[in-house]
Amino acid sequence: MKIVFIGAGRLATHLGPALCRAGYEIVQVYSLTKESAQALARLTASEPVTDLQQVARDADVYICALKDDVLPRILPELCKGREEALFLHTAGSVSMDIFQPYARHYGVLYPMQTFSKERQLDFSEIPVFIEANSTTTFSVVESLASSVSHKVTPLSSDDRRYLHLSAVFACNFVNHCYDLAGQLLEEHGIPFDTLLPLIDETARKVHELSPREAQTGPAVRYDQAVIARQSQMLSGLPHDIYELMSKSIHERNND
Amino acid sequence: MKIVFIGAGRLATHLGPALCRAGYEIVQVYSLTKESAQALARLTASEPVTDLQQVARDADVYICALKDDVLPRILPELCKGREEALFLHTAGSVSMDIFQPYARHYGVLYPMQTFSKERQLDFSEIPVFIEANSTTTFSVVESLASSVSHKVTPLSSDDRRYLHLSAVFACNFVNHCYDLAGQLLEEHGIPFDTLLPLIDETARKVHELSPREAQTGPAVRYDQAVIARQSQMLSGLPHDIYELMSKSIHERNND
Repeated sequence: MKIVFIGAGRLATHLGPALCRAGYEIVQVYSLTKESAQALARLTASEPVTDLQQVARDADVYICALKDDVLPRILPELCKGREEALFLHTAGSVSMDIFQPYARHYGVLYPMQTFSKERQLDFSEIPVFIEANSTTTFSVVESLASSVSHKVTPLSSDDRRYLHLSAVFACNFVNHCYDLAGQLLEEHGIPFDTLLPLIDETARKVHELSPREAQTGPAVRYDQAVIARQSQMLSGLPHDIYELMSKSIHERNND
Repeated sequence: MKIVFIGAGRLATHLGPALCRAGYEIVQVYSLTKESAQALARLTASEPVTDLQQVARDADVYICALKDDVLPRILPELCKGREEALFLHTAGSVSMDIFQPYARHYGVLYPMQTFSKERQLDFSEIPVFIEANSTTTFSVVESLASSVSHKVTPLSSDDRRYLHLSAVFACNFVNHCYDLAGQLLEEHGIPFDTLLPLIDETARKVHELSPREAQTGPAVRYDQAVIARQSQMLSGLPHDIYELMSKSIHERNND
């Protein structure tokens, strides 16, 4: 089975090599950015291309790992004349139906993880959510996904967009809280590392307790004196975030 | 050196046994709640008391691990007639000077961690921040702190309240993001466990990258279409939190 990667960003840089290791043949990597195409092509022993016209016509699977707004712009040309191929995208918040006007066989393979090019990850531990437009196509997507991860789950487009939104909270917003905390410390000459034992334990706790049971601190105790003092210590967006989060924690505790 | 614990909450339940293991003698545990006093007394082979009148007069150190608003109410009676003793509190956001009207020897021992009674922790890994009102007192606080943790740092009351505020962001607000994410999943029948690999990797990443470098997702890409769609999927406080956090991540990226 011959695979072409359309897009060579962070997700592709992890998924591509994982598929190679599982024995799949990546024939090409397409990216508008030459350096990105070359970098992923090296990792997958494939050919880098930067022009959509050069993309192989005879591949079996085209995996689109692109920014959400680029995907619809590229599909008409990409799918044309490749009626027998399988088209997949890897996005959390894009419906599978985006392929419907252009392709006959299509689906979604969404690995839920935060990818950075610098970090090595054990792909087999990453939950992968899949969907396809027919049962035949589904089996192909399922074997692709199962070859790289042992946590593969079928999920509809509608549920997937909620899953992706929950990932924004559990990852992007969490990371931004780390960032805001680090900025506060920096202003007082305290290194960010100081927070790591707390960050680690906060993550470990929710393996055993629900987040609601695990909650501590002034907001859940509803320690109004501390909340008022801390709120005054902040200005700008962090102040508004502090107020809203404290209110939300308090309301959740009184549900 | 004889130690009395004033308060038998989560923090005391971890610090008390750690001091015992380090060879200190805990003579009493005071708590208004009989069950809490008894539980910590069992763990520290000490006497539980529920009346402030029964608290030993001859202890060397009184460690106050109380809610921030309870501490000032208890100090006048606690400190009276115990002029030679050392008084410590363990709060992140309370100034050391709270002891000044009542005590001669005082200080702060603040372990920065999220404590739950159910969870075992390696206390030696917990950063402990200390302060004292004289150099002699400081050495006593330092040897107490160093006996339980190998990460002891002197820190002023003013810096400590910023440290505590940063811990609110890095722990309590982070945990609330986990909670909001879990609620979204629950509404779609997806178990919370699904998020654990993402939660773990998000925490692990900031051991190697700064949170700013580690950031991913629609807000940092400033993918306006996704942000607008996701914002519409929420209502109530999570909607406001989503908007503010996305804006704050975007602004941080353009600093």
